Amino acid sequence: MQIVVFVFNSWVNTMANVITYGTYDLFHVGHLRLLQRARALGGPEGTLTVVVSSDRFNWEEKHKKCAIPDVQRAEIVGALKCVDKVLFENSWEQKRQDVIDNKIDIFVMGDDWKGKFDFLSDLCQVVYLPRTPDISSTELKRQLKGLAESGK
Amino acid sequence: MQIVVFVFNSWVNTMANVITYGTYDLFHVGHLRLLQRARALGGPEGTLTVVVSSDRFNWEEKHKKCAIPDVQRAEIVGALKCVDKVLFENSWEQKRQDVIDNKIDIFVMGDDWKGKFDFLSDLCQVVYLPRTPDISSTELKRQLKGLAESGK
Repeated sequence: MQIVVFVFNSWVNTMANVITYGTYDLFHVGHLRLLQRARALGGPEGTLTVVVSSDRFNWEEKHKKCAIPDVQRAEIVGALKCVDKVLFENSWEQKRQDVIDNKIDIFVMGDDWKGKFDFLSDLCQVVYLPRTPDISSTELKRQLKGLAESGK
Repeated sequence: MQIVVFVFNSWVNTMANVITYGTYDLFHVGHLRLLQRARALGGPEGTLTVVVSSDRFNWEEKHKKCAIPDVQRAEIVGALKCVDKVLFENSWEQKRQDVIDNKIDIFVMGDDWKGKFDFLSDLCQVVYLPRTPDISSTELKRQLKGLAESGK
């Protein structure tokens, strides 16, 4: 049994399909590093699918308005070396189907969501990665407001 | 002679080394599309080197302060599929040496710089590409200021 587990883990680490979700507004290195670490979990032959929240979903479900339209946020994410496929998030419920449709082995989220997606662990491994300290869209917008006010 | 020119052009279009320069503050699709079009000029076997203006250069030469530090701007640019190499710009004068050191065939800038770098045409082809209309860092900062003020 130990041998089976070892072989299974080795296979996962060299060619796992990974998925993650996010908004990626005002794309910054915090986003990038999380995506790179998510991709690395899949191993050299793996893939990373990124699901970008749509403008409609952000507004209807979170009353959140992004600075950058969804198609542009998705275009930037899809242009990264570490990203293989981009989809849109249109509902909270689609995750289960996304995992099945894309033959996902590892579901990754930032650790601010810790525990929230454990219900998917019957389908795949669920991993929460720590975010880059001091880098977030919220913090960036705060800084930009400061820059705008100082007129620089 | 026509045959030689044809063969030379075909070679350039399949494996040319391209270089371009920019700040890439608050990375957006306008930046991305310009980089992708610059890379495409090099053909399938070509390369794209991107020279990112350093914070010191921006401040000392242009009195411009970026929202994002230079190492982070360079990290994002270097993570793009279309980019092969990233360097920093520390002076106005380095372009000639960059072209020589990196065996550049095509020097690309946005058409807001039209004519400004023709002095490099003894070393390589100089191309000015049109920018994506209505997308710029300046416009983005203006929108963000509006969003910040409206409290969204």
